Amino acid sequence: MEIEIGRAKRGRRVYAFDDVAIVPSRRTRDPEDVSVSWSIDAFQFDIPFMAAPMDSVVSPATAIQMGELGGLGVLDLEGLWTRYEDPEPLLAEIRELAPDAATARMQQIYAEPIKPELVTSRLAEIRAGGVTVAGALSPQRTQELYQTVVDAGVDLFVIRGNTVSAEHVSKEREPLNLKKFIYELDVPVIVGGAAGYTPALHLMRTGAAGVLVGFGGGAAATTRAALGIHAPMATSVADVAGARRDYLDESGGRYVHVIADGGLGTSGDIVKAIAMGADAVMLGASLARASDAPGGGWHWGQEAHHGQLPRGKRVRVGTIAPLEQILYGPATVADGTANLVGALRRSMATTGYSDLKEFQRVDVVVAPYVSQ
Amino acid sequence: MEIEIGRAKRGRRVYAFDDVAIVPSRRTRDPEDVSVSWSIDAFQFDIPFMAAPMDSVVSPATAIQMGELGGLGVLDLEGLWTRYEDPEPLLAEIRELAPDAATARMQQIYAEPIKPELVTSRLAEIRAGGVTVAGALSPQRTQELYQTVVDAGVDLFVIRGNTVSAEHVSKEREPLNLKKFIYELDVPVIVGGAAGYTPALHLMRTGAAGVLVGFGGGAAATTRAALGIHAPMATSVADVAGARRDYLDESGGRYVHVIADGGLGTSGDIVKAIAMGADAVMLGASLARASDAPGGGWHWGQEAHHGQLPRGKRVRVGTIAPLEQILYGPATVADGTANLVGALRRSMATTGYSDLKEFQRVDVVVAPYVSQ
Amino acid sequence: MEIEIGRAKRGRRVYAFDDVAIVPSRRTRDPEDVSVSWSIDAFQFDIPFMAAPMDSVVSPATAIQMGELGGLGVLDLEGLWTRYEDPEPLLAEIRELAPDAATARMQQIYAEPIKPELVTSRLAEIRAGGVTVAGALSPQRTQELYQTVVDAGVDLFVIRGNTVSAEHVSKEREPLNLKKFIYELDVPVIVGGAAGYTPALHLMRTGAAGVLVGFGGGAAATTRAALGIHAPMATSVADVAGARRDYLDESGGRYVHVIADGGLGTSGDIVKAIAMGADAVMLGASLARASDAPGGGWHWGQEAHHGQLPRGKRVRVGTIAPLEQILYGPATVADGTANLVGALRRSMATTGYSDLKEFQRVDVVVAPYVSQ
Amino acid sequence: MEIEIGRAKRGRRVYAFDDVAIVPSRRTRDPEDVSVSWSIDAFQFDIPFMAAPMDSVVSPATAIQMGELGGLGVLDLEGLWTRYEDPEPLLAEIRELAPDAATARMQQIYAEPIKPELVTSRLAEIRAGGVTVAGALSPQRTQELYQTVVDAGVDLFVIRGNTVSAEHVSKEREPLNLKKFIYELDVPVIVGGAAGYTPALHLMRTGAAGVLVGFGGGAAATTRAALGIHAPMATSVADVAGARRDYLDESGGRYVHVIADGGLGTSGDIVKAIAMGADAVMLGASLARASDAPGGGWHWGQEAHHGQLPRGKRVRVGTIAPLEQILYGPATVADGTANLVGALRRSMATTGYSDLKEFQRVDVVVAPYVSQ
Repeated sequence: MEIEIGRAKRGRRVYAFDDVAIVPSRRTRDPEDVSVSWSIDAFQFDIPFMAAPMDSVVSPATAIQMGELGGLGVLDLEGLWTRYEDPEPLLAEIRELAPDAATARMQQIYAEPIKPELVTSRLAEIRAGGVTVAGALSPQRTQELYQTVVDAGVDLFVIRGNTVSAEHVSKEREPLNLKKFIYELDVPVIVGGAAGYTPALHLMRTGAAGVLVGFGGGAAATTRAALGIHAPMATSVADVAGARRDYLDESGGRYVHVIADGGLGTSGDIVKAIAMGADAVMLGASLARASDAPGGGWHWGQEAHHGQLPRGKRVRVGTIAPLEQILYGPATVADGTANLVGALRRSMATTGYSDLKEFQRVDVVVAPYVSQ
Repeated sequence: MEIEIGRAKRGRRVYAFDDVAIVPSRRTRDPEDVSVSWSIDAFQFDIPFMAAPMDSVVSPATAIQMGELGGLGVLDLEGLWTRYEDPEPLLAEIRELAPDAATARMQQIYAEPIKPELVTSRLAEIRAGGVTVAGALSPQRTQELYQTVVDAGVDLFVIRGNTVSAEHVSKEREPLNLKKFIYELDVPVIVGGAAGYTPALHLMRTGAAGVLVGFGGGAAATTRAALGIHAPMATSVADVAGARRDYLDESGGRYVHVIADGGLGTSGDIVKAIAMGADAVMLGASLARASDAPGGGWHWGQEAHHGQLPRGKRVRVGTIAPLEQILYGPATVADGTANLVGALRRSMATTGYSDLKEFQRVDVVVAPYVSQ
Repeated sequence: MEIEIGRAKRGRRVYAFDDVAIVPSRRTRDPEDVSVSWSIDAFQFDIPFMAAPMDSVVSPATAIQMGELGGLGVLDLEGLWTRYEDPEPLLAEIRELAPDAATARMQQIYAEPIKPELVTSRLAEIRAGGVTVAGALSPQRTQELYQTVVDAGVDLFVIRGNTVSAEHVSKEREPLNLKKFIYELDVPVIVGGAAGYTPALHLMRTGAAGVLVGFGGGAAATTRAALGIHAPMATSVADVAGARRDYLDESGGRYVHVIADGGLGTSGDIVKAIAMGADAVMLGASLARASDAPGGGWHWGQEAHHGQLPRGKRVRVGTIAPLEQILYGPATVADGTANLVGALRRSMATTGYSDLKEFQRVDVVVAPYVSQ
Repeated sequence: MEIEIGRAKRGRRVYAFDDVAIVPSRRTRDPEDVSVSWSIDAFQFDIPFMAAPMDSVVSPATAIQMGELGGLGVLDLEGLWTRYEDPEPLLAEIRELAPDAATARMQQIYAEPIKPELVTSRLAEIRAGGVTVAGALSPQRTQELYQTVVDAGVDLFVIRGNTVSAEHVSKEREPLNLKKFIYELDVPVIVGGAAGYTPALHLMRTGAAGVLVGFGGGAAATTRAALGIHAPMATSVADVAGARRDYLDESGGRYVHVIADGGLGTSGDIVKAIAMGADAVMLGASLARASDAPGGGWHWGQEAHHGQLPRGKRVRVGTIAPLEQILYGPATVADGTANLVGALRRSMATTGYSDLKEFQRVDVVVAPYVSQ
């Protein structure tokens, strides 16, 4: 179903979460009877939520808290916690920066080198909390730091960049050979973002346990303005779920998890991500709104302090409730920002599904927001 | 006509009232020659309007007034009138609540238990007014309270929830068996909401006299944000009208009434609901705007005080005219909020139709608001 | 190309002027070489513009001025000029009315009876100005007043209502038999509005010289809210142009003029109306903005003072330039409100066409405004 | 894929840059390995950017600076620099004009006659700067001034108007015969705007080295309101790229460059223009935002001071950084207005392409902004 844009160019019509909705069907169910548990490799979680490796979302303490609440917190191993012995004053400073000075000062703060010994100690701190340990590196830093990470001990290793391909070409340096790297590593790897069928299929063939789906995350609008690149999430997740199905067949049964990463601002978006075929979701802004999140009401990604081409910015998200209440309610507002788990359960119950895998089959409709 | 959203997901394009319009055809007619009468079971009404069972819309007094004006008022049997001997001070308090305190205080007010004796006396009061008596329960409370309701005497029994399915599954408790319940009850039942062909067809097969079409009513936007569920009304009504036609054939002639419930903010929306195949409409906000409505310029549904996951809120709708004038005019404004009956008549006359059943065949077009 | 809205309803996708645009083609031309002349029956006009029969647009003096400028002014024979000996004080009063009092006071002012002797004298005044004389009646008043109008002498007789059908059905009174009426009348008749192929074809079969295309004119948004009726102009004009073509064949050569009436706020809209197949346009708001228009910066139609169901309102359009400059420039603004004739010429020149009939064949594209 | 707008009219659905986006594919690459060089005829450029011949964008000094930075500055030979010995005071005056006086005063300023000797000296000044020399004339002035231009010495001759067709028809004067003109001229000619396949193909057949694609440039919005003409850029560029391909075949190998001209407000738009098939882009507003641009924070085109029908206006674009930084970064903002070259490189790298010609094949999707 390609559209002719002009004589020399055709393109597919793609869809954002806002373009789609799920619809009730014949059966309904009690919310209490619904399971939202998720397991990947040997690890079990009560809820299919990963906290994104961003300094405004996950500190070692949040990672432990997230684990205790049934999910998984992923620490950014290239963030403030591995650059500074005590990052709290810097987190506080970032919150207070004047808008016009923010980008420049953040570029400075993040220019501080990463200390391998801090990588080790931060991961040890999380492990001591008794929860599943996960840390994230960018593809550019993976070769330099992965041995430190593995030696420190992680349960799940996350490689996360704007776009990660299985086939990076470089004239200057030997790029990371993901297939070889993952094969040799004795830890399950979750890798992405990938935003389409083909790049995701290639990532699955590297042996990854999970693929992060998305491009540019919460900075989608500025990425589109700056780079002209845009991969609306409903189509991206459904495409990568298609790659999972085809790879399952091709590999004779290896099930690679599809994790939606970006554009998940409300519980409704989370519901739609799973309806499109996601096994789990990685949450940024939704959790940065927790009153006990490290960002203290502010949220930023690595694009915000890119040296040459910043493509996002520090944004004020405010604080609405403690993390536990954002996840499990009760909600005191009706806008989909709190009781994320309760909303997911109710949505599954209303449409008659009892677990996440079944819920991926729920009926959906195309109904752009603009026409309500 | 399914759309591929992504490799692993397809969905239908669905339409809201704002996406469609009716168009004139060959013939025109005098508005005075048009009939807008409606009958269901043994009951006759001058106008096809039910007042929604919401505390801001229907009190026992309004139910009588609505009946006298030719329509049907449905009392919420789980609202303030069956929880409190004198709800007037609470209605007044709700109007005055500060925005940030409203949800919490309303949760408190509605925590007061329902008194069966009040159910009995409220329904008796309406019957004494000499009009058709209708009361509504949620599916959750139906088993507990229906005997009280039937003993008190109702002409029409309404079971109304966000989504009511003919097949509710529960591990904890025996769910309401709608088919058995309706079969044994000696009163016609109107049940819903249902938002699609299949769930509505199953409700029709339970023996219901009418099906309410809609999901989330006036809280559609917040329901979509919180649950990811959205069922735009133009498609929903036309789908359920399709179920009515198919069930008419399957049942050898049983005509189940299709009643649009939600998203009917203007007389234009009412016109479109009938054009899509509705036999009647259930009005909430449109009637809450009456200066003599119990809400006194405010409007709220049961979602507004849900304990764990509120999905709507008390909204200020203002007051524009007495109920009689909202229904029959004259209108002093031109925005479709007054003279609802006059507008329906004029619309039918302009397109040449003389009764509601014929008018369901009127030509419609797809013309999204955005492109005027 | 019908769309399934839901199981029991299908509808066509229709288009507004804002949804379409014209595009340049192979050839260009000098604007000076372009002719924008129009003739209907025995009457020749330099420009294809009729001024709408509305009190804010056409007085007897404006009708003369419009004729001298090459177009045709149509006097509303049911407006202030035929109800009052001296309407100027009332025009001034309407301009000054407070917003919340306007509808009610206008209902009062227009309750004054029409005086046949004023119909006679106003038309005589225009004829004395040496221009083509045109007056408009509503279908409801045509039988009562047409003899007065014909005796007074008009060159073109306009019957204009929201929707005029060739087959009006009434139980109370004998409706106007348009076919018989037009056959017996010795004056060419322009009749409408009609908004679709079938109603327009039926109007053409009555013997009308021209058909007005539109529904609800500038009050389209409120008409849609109140009545649920909407006929976007691009589709309406192209449909009626299709009826003209088919009727030309069916009648063995009778060419009925298609006159777009409504939604023509800018010179771009006028260009598009002709591109869709219109022979001429009837202008309301565009001309009400003239500093010498009778409305003095305000604009209103007959819907604004409808007794029971007002569907438009008095709107402030402001004044931008004298009528001559609005038509012929120079424009001092770049928004399509001035130099309407110059813009039409330039548009035709840019796409290589030299007269209006040819220009109806210009290439058009569908390009909704929302995506610029 | 034509759409029926109404019975008598059909049109193609066309697309703007905002309607489309590019998407990552299987491979990624280092931004440093990407080439963005462009060559036309014998001229080589480091970057595929032409600065538009507008007084707010290119002065002789800017033309030199643009050349030194790797691009091509085109001087407007009908602008202030060829009308006035010293235009600096007039540039300053235009910046300071009150909004309501601007159009009238600019009409006055640009009424000053063009001096051939200034054409000669301005071009000599640019040549003395050691860069490629390019000047632009409108089609109306080309016959009068081209000999002066050629004698003064230009490397690239630009003929630029709103719409330039290969077949202009005029009753009054002999129009420019482009084919003959270009054949006889010993300098490569870039000509446009053309906005569709057929007009561009005809321009290619005149022997032009490049075709400018666009209609109305940044003033497109008012052009649509005033003239009803609109040619969204994504479709226009892809159509003209189709003409290039067909003409390449038809001519046995003559490659005519496609240069997108208009609607390029962000680096994302530039990326999309090339993705649609452009070989280079002509930038106006993007470069007018340079702190060292002649407009000093204001931007205007020739439509802004058109005598009879102004179709654009002087707009405040502000200043964000010196020209060098707008082109090469670092960006301190994340909205696509700075580091245009860096963004183009990163976009190509992210999608795995290494030169501009290859990048024209990148995958694109249709994803209207409204649904993010």
